[in-house]
Amino acid sequence: MALLNADERAALGRELTGWTVGEDSLERRFEFKDFGRSFGFMASVALAAEKLGHHPDWSNSYNRVSIRLTTHDAGGLTDKDAELARRISQLAE
Amino acid sequence: MALLNADERAALGRELTGWTVGEDSLERRFEFKDFGRSFGFMASVALAAEKLGHHPDWSNSYNRVSIRLTTHDAGGLTDKDAELARRISQLAE
Repeated sequence: MALLNADERAALGRELTGWTVGEDSLERRFEFKDFGRSFGFMASVALAAEKLGHHPDWSNSYNRVSIRLTTHDAGGLTDKDAELARRISQLAE
Repeated sequence: MALLNADERAALGRELTGWTVGEDSLERRFEFKDFGRSFGFMASVALAAEKLGHHPDWSNSYNRVSIRLTTHDAGGLTDKDAELARRISQLAE
C-alpha cells in the first residue's frame, strides 16, 4: 500500500471536511449528546473498520470521541485511511 | 461522592490485581487477540458503565485497550471508580 504524496494529502484536506490532514495521519474529534450516543457511533465505526480491514486509533471520554487514522504497516497515510475517514464522516452525519 | 483517602487507595491496590492505583486514577491496559475481541470487551464495559452511571476514559488501538478511571465531578478517585474497575476486571476474565 503506497503512501499518499503531498498533492494527494492536500486534495484529501479539501475533500474531508472536519478532518485534520497531517503528514502521516488524519485526525478528527466528534462530540455527542452523551456516552450512549458516543458509543453507538463507535460501534458503527468498529463495524465499518472491521469490514474494511483497517482500524482507527481512538479514544473516548463520555460524550467525546477522538479518532486518529494512519496505516501502521506503511508508516504513514494511505488510501485505506482516506477510505475509512470517508466512511466515518458518513456515519457521523 | 467522597474522595478515597490514602488508606482506602492502598487497600484498593491490594484488591484490584492488574490495576495501577494512582492518587486520582485507576489505570489498566488490556491486550486481546484482535480488534474484534477488543471491541467486544469495550462493548461489554460500555454497558456496565452505562448501568453504573459512571464512564471510563479509554483508548483503543487494534488489539489493545487502555482504561483510566477517575471521578471528574469529585476531582479524583471515589467508590464509583472502584466499583467500575471491579466490574471491568470480571468482564476481562
